[in-house]
Amino acid sequence: MTEDRTTDRRGLFVSFEGGDGVGKSTQLALLGGWLAGTGREVVTTREPGGTPLGLRLRELVLHGEHMGPRAEALLYAADRAHHVDTVVRPALARGAVVLTDRYLDSSVAYQGDGRALGADEVERLSLWATEGLLPDLTVLLDLDPAVGLARLSGAPDRLESAGDDFHARTRRAFLDRAATGGDRWLVLDAAEPVEAVHAAVRARVAALVGAEGSSSAVPGPASSGSRA
Amino acid sequence: MTEDRTTDRRGLFVSFEGGDGVGKSTQLALLGGWLAGTGREVVTTREPGGTPLGLRLRELVLHGEHMGPRAEALLYAADRAHHVDTVVRPALARGAVVLTDRYLDSSVAYQGDGRALGADEVERLSLWATEGLLPDLTVLLDLDPAVGLARLSGAPDRLESAGDDFHARTRRAFLDRAATGGDRWLVLDAAEPVEAVHAAVRARVAALVGAEGSSSAVPGPASSGSRA
Repeated sequence: MTEDRTTDRRGLFVSFEGGDGVGKSTQLALLGGWLAGTGREVVTTREPGGTPLGLRLRELVLHGEHMGPRAEALLYAADRAHHVDTVVRPALARGAVVLTDRYLDSSVAYQGDGRALGADEVERLSLWATEGLLPDLTVLLDLDPAVGLARLSGAPDRLESAGDDFHARTRRAFLDRAATGGDRWLVLDAAEPVEAVHAAVRARVAALVGAEGSSSAVPGPASSGSRA
Repeated sequence: MTEDRTTDRRGLFVSFEGGDGVGKSTQLALLGGWLAGTGREVVTTREPGGTPLGLRLRELVLHGEHMGPRAEALLYAADRAHHVDTVVRPALARGAVVLTDRYLDSSVAYQGDGRALGADEVERLSLWATEGLLPDLTVLLDLDPAVGLARLSGAPDRLESAGDDFHARTRRAFLDRAATGGDRWLVLDAAEPVEAVHAAVRARVAALVGAEGSSSAVPGPASSGSRA
């Protein structure tokens, strides 16, 4: 039930995770620009809201009527199922690099910790929704929530206004998950300068796309690894 | 994970199931009218679409962009979780009789048979969504799909237009489920006259609401069973 349906996967799948205001969209854009400059097809996307359906679901979850933790988890999982089906897997099958602003680990950290549901339940639901698709690389941008939230402008949505304890717990959940999650995780200090963080991300991605012959490698020039 | 959270349940929960055009809403209205006449609180509702959130999800599933079977199953499950949380359980806790036009068994029959997902997977998802809430009584109105569909007017939605084979398979799925589902099922021939079908439904419900001391009994006058 949670096995990855890998047969059609040739590209590289990278997710950016972390709290609000840590710089995920900035780093995603920098990485995307660099990869595009190497001649690769890059698909940048996000969860929730990476599809027209997802945009409507995101609106329902963040600004709609109050709902319980199961309904919320199921809506996020529906968004993810549709996003993977219609955006991520087709792009990976073409050999593209897919960069997503949040993926499964956000659901586990936000819904599965410090709320009513267990992390295992939320993860199982997401793996069912996606037929087991995990990123090749997950970049966790780690930052004191007080610093991240101060960077944000505009009206807070439900998650942003959920309180200091909540943000501290989800930061811890991300870090714990990275610590036990193996090779796909790259944890970076998001208090460092933007360019330094980007250089660290680029170095890891360069190693991955240069790894010719790996099942997750992007087809490309043999010299691509040396550009980083 | 699929255990019923029964502690707050005092009312009676009845679902009506079957294909399109079998007379679910007619029978639900007749039963509701009869029960209200006995002085009981009756809540009539439906899935999908029994809540404001559910209405929007129903619209997305039936008339929105094409989606895969997992996204669809997750949206129905989200609707169900929210419906149970905000409508069904609060009413049962008050001691009301809740009558719903479709519930979990529709998901299993429509999504879990003849499509990409297994019936067990869809049922497991629904039981997780509802924390294990099953009806006390499920009335299956059984009818040849050709007869049921001919009764309908207006433009077909996605399910109604899914083809004869599909409707024959879901009819079989409902019947198989009833055959192995135990005491909660009442299977009736929906080709019989409306009043005859109603009398059979009423007789079974009268027996249930008259069953003083049962965990699913509705509090009421001791004579209520004799009114049927």
